[in-house]
Amino acid sequence: MREPEIAVTFEPQGKKVFVLSGTKIIEAAALAGAALNLPCGGQGTCGKCKVRVVDNPCDPTDTERKTLDREELDSGVRLACQSCICASTTIDIPETSLLASSYQVLSAVDGGIVGDVNPAVRKQYVELPKPSRDDPAADLERLYGALGVFTADLALARALPARLRTWDFRGTAVRADHQLIDFEQGNTERQRYCVAFDIGTTSVVGSLLDLESGRECANTSRMNPQTRFGDDVLSRILRAREQDDGAADLREVIVAEVNEMILELLDQAGVPKERVYEAVFAGNTTMQQLLLGLDTAALGEVPFVPVTARGQLLAAAAVGVAIHPRGRVYVFPVIGGFLGGDTVAGILATDLENCPTPTVFVDIGTNGEIVLSYDGQMLAASTAAGPAFEGARITHGMRAVEGAIEKVIFDGDARVNIIGNVSPIGLCGSALIDVAAELRRHGMLMREGLLLAPEHLPADLPEAIRKRVTKTDNGVAFLLASANESGTQAPIVLTQGDVRELQLAAGAVRAGMSILLRRAGLKVEQLGRVLIAGGFGNFIRRSNAQCIGLLPSGLDHHRLAFVGNTSLAGARMAAISQTARACAEQLARRIKRIDLSLDPAFQAEFVNAMTFPSIRPEE
Amino acid sequence: MREPEIAVTFEPQGKKVFVLSGTKIIEAAALAGAALNLPCGGQGTCGKCKVRVVDNPCDPTDTERKTLDREELDSGVRLACQSCICASTTIDIPETSLLASSYQVLSAVDGGIVGDVNPAVRKQYVELPKPSRDDPAADLERLYGALGVFTADLALARALPARLRTWDFRGTAVRADHQLIDFEQGNTERQRYCVAFDIGTTSVVGSLLDLESGRECANTSRMNPQTRFGDDVLSRILRAREQDDGAADLREVIVAEVNEMILELLDQAGVPKERVYEAVFAGNTTMQQLLLGLDTAALGEVPFVPVTARGQLLAAAAVGVAIHPRGRVYVFPVIGGFLGGDTVAGILATDLENCPTPTVFVDIGTNGEIVLSYDGQMLAASTAAGPAFEGARITHGMRAVEGAIEKVIFDGDARVNIIGNVSPIGLCGSALIDVAAELRRHGMLMREGLLLAPEHLPADLPEAIRKRVTKTDNGVAFLLASANESGTQAPIVLTQGDVRELQLAAGAVRAGMSILLRRAGLKVEQLGRVLIAGGFGNFIRRSNAQCIGLLPSGLDHHRLAFVGNTSLAGARMAAISQTARACAEQLARRIKRIDLSLDPAFQAEFVNAMTFPSIRPEE
Repeated sequence: MREPEIAVTFEPQGKKVFVLSGTKIIEAAALAGAALNLPCGGQGTCGKCKVRVVDNPCDPTDTERKTLDREELDSGVRLACQSCICASTTIDIPETSLLASSYQVLSAVDGGIVGDVNPAVRKQYVELPKPSRDDPAADLERLYGALGVFTADLALARALPARLRTWDFRGTAVRADHQLIDFEQGNTERQRYCVAFDIGTTSVVGSLLDLESGRECANTSRMNPQTRFGDDVLSRILRAREQDDGAADLREVIVAEVNEMILELLDQAGVPKERVYEAVFAGNTTMQQLLLGLDTAALGEVPFVPVTARGQLLAAAAVGVAIHPRGRVYVFPVIGGFLGGDTVAGILATDLENCPTPTVFVDIGTNGEIVLSYDGQMLAASTAAGPAFEGARITHGMRAVEGAIEKVIFDGDARVNIIGNVSPIGLCGSALIDVAAELRRHGMLMREGLLLAPEHLPADLPEAIRKRVTKTDNGVAFLLASANESGTQAPIVLTQGDVRELQLAAGAVRAGMSILLRRAGLKVEQLGRVLIAGGFGNFIRRSNAQCIGLLPSGLDHHRLAFVGNTSLAGARMAAISQTARACAEQLARRIKRIDLSLDPAFQAEFVNAMTFPSIRPEE
Repeated sequence: MREPEIAVTFEPQGKKVFVLSGTKIIEAAALAGAALNLPCGGQGTCGKCKVRVVDNPCDPTDTERKTLDREELDSGVRLACQSCICASTTIDIPETSLLASSYQVLSAVDGGIVGDVNPAVRKQYVELPKPSRDDPAADLERLYGALGVFTADLALARALPARLRTWDFRGTAVRADHQLIDFEQGNTERQRYCVAFDIGTTSVVGSLLDLESGRECANTSRMNPQTRFGDDVLSRILRAREQDDGAADLREVIVAEVNEMILELLDQAGVPKERVYEAVFAGNTTMQQLLLGLDTAALGEVPFVPVTARGQLLAAAAVGVAIHPRGRVYVFPVIGGFLGGDTVAGILATDLENCPTPTVFVDIGTNGEIVLSYDGQMLAASTAAGPAFEGARITHGMRAVEGAIEKVIFDGDARVNIIGNVSPIGLCGSALIDVAAELRRHGMLMREGLLLAPEHLPADLPEAIRKRVTKTDNGVAFLLASANESGTQAPIVLTQGDVRELQLAAGAVRAGMSILLRRAGLKVEQLGRVLIAGGFGNFIRRSNAQCIGLLPSGLDHHRLAFVGNTSLAGARMAAISQTARACAEQLARRIKRIDLSLDPAFQAEFVNAMTFPSIRPEE
């Protein structure tokens, strides 16, 4: 019943994704974070989404034969909106086929050069005049002459005179803003690195960047070790507030994990710690405050007040981050208690404010953050969407880790794909959406969320699927894996209760989106694009998300773009560019925060959004 | 033979000094740091130096009877240039009799208000709007709203949310520049203090200042504990360079002493440590660098290069100074290796750059620093004058501490005064000058520095004085205290060799002054004033210093003013005024440093200056 996924590598980004056979190329490219041009709306008539399938191209469709010429077809050129993946392959995406703003994100995630490389940390090799009776100026004045005035901490000022004399008044000055971070032997101008981190509630992703080129040298990801103190944000806030040393424990484990990840990054790239001068962090407000050891108590209750809204530039030593001893830490600005640095980083990475048409950015993680950009304005809201999509409150729900069913397709029977190709032990958010969408399409799930009992199922339903529907004490359930197939020796099912949770979660996101659109005086149809961010967002199927009403169904399919881990992408941009950092600060201040619970229309929108969209006209 | 000194208290400054009977009031006032008006040159004709002798006024002189009216004379008014001290008393100095610029110094030293009170540290009591759903702004944004934007260190940011909530969003913000130093419970606006220190090679003086009024609340002084590692600057530089942990040892003892002094100051005034937000330090370049733990090796050899020339603003915690944990340390800018923060502070305190006539500032400590201000320009030089005046290389020389003969007057016999009224154990710099001057006046010491043998002494010399001259293997010597009188059970003498050392020291200062005047194209007679600073300068007698050529004899006596510890006075000004601090930085950069050893005329001037000035026309 399990079908292995097919590996597809997209070039020049070098990003590899795994998809089921028959997936459209454009969908696979979206999984890889690349949004392609689709001015004709995926009709295959404009030829703007051309790609070249290097190995094993499928036979061209009739549409492709009309739109592409013989030579193109022979060399493997296909239309991404028409051609499918039929075997493991590599696909070249010409830059002309990429949507500009999505390219930015893609390259930020995958090691390309992003915008300007304009880091805060600068290096300059100097050869200073040596002191003499005619020139007995102070050591620091000598350096000011070459570099301009700066400040230096005592430890460095103490070491400087001996270094200058041992190295014959030559060396490389490392500065950030007006601070001298170090004075190094010889010319080390080209050895200049920083690290960027996305600190998620569930996972932590880190990247080592070369500040000369702006390129990524290494990357790594881990579970957030704070999960041992609680799965979600609120449980950690409670832990920090209620336990002795709770805040210190939470801070210590994340700082230690970050430091281990830095060691791993340095090891991968062969870079010494002393050459890493900055660390940039983006995360939700709680994760950022826990990292800094800031009091999170006020984030745990109405009105969810953060300690600081602006980005924080701090001594790495004070934070405990093990880079250069005089290195610095930059933590992203936040919009509010539930609109954190990860959202700001995402807006920065997608260049949301400059989108030419009204655009919604939605990050479906533990919470669902939604930002609407239109007419030079931005509205943002946070919804409590997350727990269901991350497995909480779902009978066999789990996070997208090994053993999770992460994809479900009804094809005569229910085909499932499991992360790590092991026996399944539960289902994660994307599978939850898949199965609900397939149940809807097959007439097994009503608009109001009722799972039909076996006796009410449509007559034309394949028998294999029909057999999966059972009645239990808690209502109807749908079998995804039998006790024999399951890694837990117990059946894995979707229950009526699970569907309710899904309705609540999807409804919250959709209602939030509706409120923002209403505030802006816009209709869904006027949206140029919907950008879906987050590790989770990478793996959900757009059509299914629309089918269950998580994403608006009034939109052309191609206007929905997956933009990947934009929190990390934004952190990386801020790491290599002061301009990006200044832009993040401005964004965080400019965005108008909407408290959905204060909007009188929210409850009605929410109830409305909990009803699944109709599939057939008569529904 | 020992005559006790008489106590004189000057009001309104409240400064008490001790002088021998018969000392002119103007001289006693100078000892107290108060320079009086003397437009008539001390002839007693202008009446501008009027003072009121509260108790025991001497009988008025004929001159006073002419210049002052009956009523004045009856109420104790006298002319400071005419009247002497004949008994213990209190003397009122009306402000009209004080020279403006000296008043500034005097009051700085003695607790008055100096210039503008404009401290870097500001306090502001705030009552912030409390967070609500309509106003969920971050805690720091709430404070920015009331105070403007600032930076706060992590420790404070960690504590802030709980404080705000416990104190109902009310409290006092303490800021310096753009840094939030603390947020205190209740309204503490009026509790704002700092400390100012003069770190001398030999002694350390500290002052606690109320930043509301600018007034001194307490003061204390101690020996510099580094003297145990070496008496002078060079021996400490060697110690720091040659010994393992030498620099650390030197740093630790001075920081510990400063911290003990701070505790004493706080105890005197009943002020808690947490209300002291800044500590300001002025000292010579080596003392300042040792305090900060900066490498002093380059100060020990040509071309005597300091680590830093600009003033340093540092975290008190980094320096180790025990004030408020987020308090700051300001260390004075220096002009060069041997023209340190003490000289800059002195120039600041005496407002030297704004003197209307050409003025020399001379600080005779371990080194002799000389600054000439004229026509809006300033020249500065340092001479190796000091060791003799501080007792080094003098047979029975010692510093001005208990047991030192500090004053000598020939009055039929040699009368001496001893610090602490104990048996004498040596002589300090002021006594060295006194005895040499008296020997010159009595024809016992030739211009070239030869002490006459008993057989060549003038015929009219009092017998008691003649008997003190003896011949030894090392030439002629003059007896100051016999073995019976001495606290060491050995005679205390001035030797021919001691006179040579005095000639070298005085010659260096005079030659330095001559070179600066020559560079400026000025003659001694054009000098409006010579300001003599330093603890030492307080106790030398101007006439005697002129007699031996330490101070220029071509000047009217009243143009020589003692200005006291101007290093502390300048430190205090910088402590209570940002304007003064900015001024100090500008001064240190504006002053032109003259390297005397590079001046081709210096050697000739030096040899010339070693010859004592003539006393009688035939000499």
